[in-house]
Amino acid sequence: METVKVFELSKEYLESLRESIEIEDNNFIQQSLDGANEADVASLLDELDIEEALYVLRVLDHEFAADVLIELDEETQFKAVQEMESTELASLMDHMDSDDAVDILNQLVLKDREEVISYLQEKEKSAHILDLLRYEEGSAGGLMAKELIKANLNWTVIQTIDEIRRQAENVEKIYSIYVVDNKEKLLGRVGLKKIILSSSQTRIADIYEGDIVSVPTYMDEEEIAEIMRKYDLEAIPVVNAKDKLVGRITVDDILDVIREQTEEDMHAMTGITDDVEESDSVFRLSKARLPWLLIGIIGGLLGAKIIGVFEEGLNKYIALASFIPLITATGGNVGIQSSSLVVQTLAAKSIFAESIGRRFAKVLLVAILNGLVLGFVVLCTIVFIYGYDVGFGLVVGLALFSVVLLASFMGTLTPIVLDKIGINPAMASGPFITTANDLLGLAVYFLVAMMLLNL
Amino acid sequence: METVKVFELSKEYLESLRESIEIEDNNFIQQSLDGANEADVASLLDELDIEEALYVLRVLDHEFAADVLIELDEETQFKAVQEMESTELASLMDHMDSDDAVDILNQLVLKDREEVISYLQEKEKSAHILDLLRYEEGSAGGLMAKELIKANLNWTVIQTIDEIRRQAENVEKIYSIYVVDNKEKLLGRVGLKKIILSSSQTRIADIYEGDIVSVPTYMDEEEIAEIMRKYDLEAIPVVNAKDKLVGRITVDDILDVIREQTEEDMHAMTGITDDVEESDSVFRLSKARLPWLLIGIIGGLLGAKIIGVFEEGLNKYIALASFIPLITATGGNVGIQSSSLVVQTLAAKSIFAESIGRRFAKVLLVAILNGLVLGFVVLCTIVFIYGYDVGFGLVVGLALFSVVLLASFMGTLTPIVLDKIGINPAMASGPFITTANDLLGLAVYFLVAMMLLNL
Repeated sequence: METVKVFELSKEYLESLRESIEIEDNNFIQQSLDGANEADVASLLDELDIEEALYVLRVLDHEFAADVLIELDEETQFKAVQEMESTELASLMDHMDSDDAVDILNQLVLKDREEVISYLQEKEKSAHILDLLRYEEGSAGGLMAKELIKANLNWTVIQTIDEIRRQAENVEKIYSIYVVDNKEKLLGRVGLKKIILSSSQTRIADIYEGDIVSVPTYMDEEEIAEIMRKYDLEAIPVVNAKDKLVGRITVDDILDVIREQTEEDMHAMTGITDDVEESDSVFRLSKARLPWLLIGIIGGLLGAKIIGVFEEGLNKYIALASFIPLITATGGNVGIQSSSLVVQTLAAKSIFAESIGRRFAKVLLVAILNGLVLGFVVLCTIVFIYGYDVGFGLVVGLALFSVVLLASFMGTLTPIVLDKIGINPAMASGPFITTANDLLGLAVYFLVAMMLLNL
Repeated sequence: METVKVFELSKEYLESLRESIEIEDNNFIQQSLDGANEADVASLLDELDIEEALYVLRVLDHEFAADVLIELDEETQFKAVQEMESTELASLMDHMDSDDAVDILNQLVLKDREEVISYLQEKEKSAHILDLLRYEEGSAGGLMAKELIKANLNWTVIQTIDEIRRQAENVEKIYSIYVVDNKEKLLGRVGLKKIILSSSQTRIADIYEGDIVSVPTYMDEEEIAEIMRKYDLEAIPVVNAKDKLVGRITVDDILDVIREQTEEDMHAMTGITDDVEESDSVFRLSKARLPWLLIGIIGGLLGAKIIGVFEEGLNKYIALASFIPLITATGGNVGIQSSSLVVQTLAAKSIFAESIGRRFAKVLLVAILNGLVLGFVVLCTIVFIYGYDVGFGLVVGLALFSVVLLASFMGTLTPIVLDKIGINPAMASGPFITTANDLLGLAVYFLVAMMLLNL
């Protein structure tokens, strides 16, 4: 059972692997990794220096090394691909599915790509790869593999089984057999269970399922993920503009897409610019975090200017300073709540989504309700517990109410605008909206104070 | 093709469906929904009133109605389940997989559960359900279905095909056949492709794959999701403490788990307490947002107290007020960045994760580096552009540096502590950390000012 193998890939094993690399004990490397899962070996190589990882990849047999290379983390994979010779890469790519091979190729400069392709042994594979290179990364075309089993509508079950046998090497996981007409137009699917349970002379036309979900080559990967989740699919066929079957996307690739997307959203929401992890270098971590911190600083410095404008009034009424954090923090919290709800709606892409007008009307109602509650709580606390006069309580309460309204509006509008102009809307839940709301909140607060207190 | 069906489920169709419900035109309902996908019909019913949705469910045939009921959104499903008679629910549950049936049962009070189970027609199903009810929701046991195909090690391929035929109705998607010994202990798996390509007298023992990944019944669903992603699995067998095969989890359920988890994390990070969507009622939205806003308000009011303590110094040096937002905003931004990186590491659960000590050392280094850069930028701006004296520039710069250090530390520690005591660590990226950092930042700022400016 797997548990045993996972145990072997411990920190202790990592040390003995390192030693065996140093003394070039290829036997130990091959034997100890024999039968291990490629994903486990990849996790292990991610921990090694790139030269050590390359040494191990070269000692393993091509088919296993190809599987491991695909599973490496982004950084290790990129380095490994850059270091390898074109012939070496080609011999590994001969053992990969077309979509994985293209992911590897995309990490090379154009000139090297052509060289690697020219070294490929299997001509069908290089044709597949050349076809896939045309599509954009992040689209159905960029995500799909060419390897799949298709059966003509007029075939019998036994003819289909022959096709499965012929392709057994190329298509590791079949899931469904796609049914096409003579022009390769996708008509439907038939599951392996049905193939097993039907007699060998049954015609595919009599057992296939016609109503299936397919996606066009240009569809965005996030939308595909949502479709596969909604319809409980483990694979989805991809068709071109003429409904011709051109590839399929499997759920394992979708799980990776979802994970990347979630990390990207989290980074956008928390103001981290690069795809970093805690285990990256101090310098890299620092660099990924500085840009948004600096933008926050610029916001803070502008905030100082705004407060400076009202310095005279502040001098007369020093208590105003005490409630600055209350105003800015609430503005930030409200803005982030609003934008995250919009981001969630944008991700779901329902055809029944409410109109923009109705949404804003609702945002306004929620904001008025929350603003009233919060304003009232603050007014009462300031007057009855902190002992300020009612006039001052009204200033802070009213300013807070206005800030809740404005921040709700900004928090709702910003992600919608970002999405329209093609920027990840999750960005709007991050430092951007907080900084903008701080400035807006300060201005509103002091303007309300000036008017109500006659400063 | 599916595109046609999706089009039919438009807003216009929704209107005609509503009309046909009112005039009880069952023919129209049955015919127009015939062949539609259950997930699409469910999206449609989610838009209707609960009485209308129930009417449609009752008009559809039991098998299709069962599929649709499973796909309804949480709220609609809950309402529908409460409204239905026990016999009615039982007749739908006879057509469900055991895991889906248990999800439905879990929405009933204990007494009703027993009643529904007693009405089930299939005795095997009720045994399955009673078994599954023992496990906690969110664990492998709570997520798995009992429906699966298993083959004894000593069977031949033709015996296995007979078993597939016998179970064809119960197990919709097979993926793998699990291989067990006479004591039901899980030994490995064999794919359908291999079954198709092997001769009927081949022994399972000769073709099965022994090294497979399985999970124990008590494993947490998030961890299972990560395992299935890492090893590219579409289904995973679940075993009990004696390695006996007790169920399997399929990837469609995992996609739902991931989605729920992501929404939960986003809500935790943005201070929303309930599982709400933009389309929910104004009152519900308002209620979900108020708790954290109120906590933010309490933080702001405490902040006012802190500033109040330093009012005398503030009176002498009014410019101090201007830089309050700079300090609090930076503290918040740094804290959120730190905690989100920790949350990401916690989610990955790598056995090669760095030790707590090394992580904190690194956090400190990154904080010092960023603190120096930000403090220096602020010092220079305040002195050379805003024209304050160097002493005051040093106060703000040094306070900012200290706040960056403290916020990094808090942002790193909080999610680790929350995770240890069983609270979703994503909470630490939300209003909690911002509010705490605001207070901490204010205190540090004024203490530094008092010392350096002799206030």
